[in-house]
Amino acid sequence: MTIKTNQRVEFCDITAAVNEFLQKEQAGDGSVLLFVPHTTAALTVNEGADPAVRGDLAAFLEKLVPHTGDYKHAEGNSDAHIKASLLGSNLYLPVKNGKLVLGFWQAVYFVEFDGPRTRRLQLQLLT
Amino acid sequence: MTIKTNQRVEFCDITAAVNEFLQKEQAGDGSVLLFVPHTTAALTVNEGADPAVRGDLAAFLEKLVPHTGDYKHAEGNSDAHIKASLLGSNLYLPVKNGKLVLGFWQAVYFVEFDGPRTRRLQLQLLT
Amino acid sequence: MTIKTNQRVEFCDITAAVNEFLQKEQAGDGSVLLFVPHTTAALTVNEGADPAVRGDLAAFLEKLVPHTGDYKHAEGNSDAHIKASLLGSNLYLPVKNGKLVLGFWQAVYFVEFDGPRTRRLQLQLLT
Repeated sequence: MTIKTNQRVEFCDITAAVNEFLQKEQAGDGSVLLFVPHTTAALTVNEGADPAVRGDLAAFLEKLVPHTGDYKHAEGNSDAHIKASLLGSNLYLPVKNGKLVLGFWQAVYFVEFDGPRTRRLQLQLLT
Repeated sequence: MTIKTNQRVEFCDITAAVNEFLQKEQAGDGSVLLFVPHTTAALTVNEGADPAVRGDLAAFLEKLVPHTGDYKHAEGNSDAHIKASLLGSNLYLPVKNGKLVLGFWQAVYFVEFDGPRTRRLQLQLLT
Repeated sequence: MTIKTNQRVEFCDITAAVNEFLQKEQAGDGSVLLFVPHTTAALTVNEGADPAVRGDLAAFLEKLVPHTGDYKHAEGNSDAHIKASLLGSNLYLPVKNGKLVLGFWQAVYFVEFDGPRTRRLQLQLLT
């Protein structure tokens, strides 16, 4: 799956896109592995209803790990590497009837920390 | 599985309950997916022996992400959403002879960040 | 798998060792679960090329969770328990042709937070 991000930091709701993939693969029941093959992006599950939740999370992470700081890595994106390790690059989610089994308020986010870029997401089905 | 929490922030040791589930399902060898279908609770594996360890972790998280702060989300639980994303909502654990294969000091915790509530935990067996 | 660490905090690149395990097991296509049966060590995926990236991550974590502080746990390693829960103790990674499917810049790290010690890592194949 390809994801085009438009800002340096961006929470992309990929719930619908993952469900589309599951339907195309006729997933049935089982689980799905989501894996980010990049080192400055991550995955997280959080509230999908109020955009302020992801805004607060982004603001918290930016304050905790500022873009510029006393970093040794010369590319100027050390903060993005650190944020990626804090959230993590893989998720394993339950699937039923070819759809993600999420809680009522949950959405799956691909989190860009060093965009804008064109990113890939690996999905692997386990039935 | 249902978990009843009694405080706003609470580390519930669910190791025995997960093992009970595995025995009821006659799990054998394989692995089990644990997934929290909520956005203000999480899962973590850490020491089960000394309660001070989870106390220190809770105190650290409370200091890092205070309950009240400059948040935009109007429900007053933005800190709980942030803490949930930091620890993560899913775990994938190895199973042998119908029991979790954990290290000697390890326990599995359901972590409540916005209780007290009645919570659900999804378990999915993979043999 | 056994890992010998030499410092208190150490990022051990285990990518080659995991691939060796996969080849020995004739893994083919599927996925692999990595699980740390300890409470003061963790796993993360991040850049393998520039050592400054893991240096910056280690320095960030040390500043965020100092070795000494107002902790209740009497063994003097509460910081290591906290860091372990922040990064997480399990990873689930895709496998193809008996090799980890990683992004170009990615490496898999076993992260020691309370060494030096001899550590174990559990690997479980799912094909």
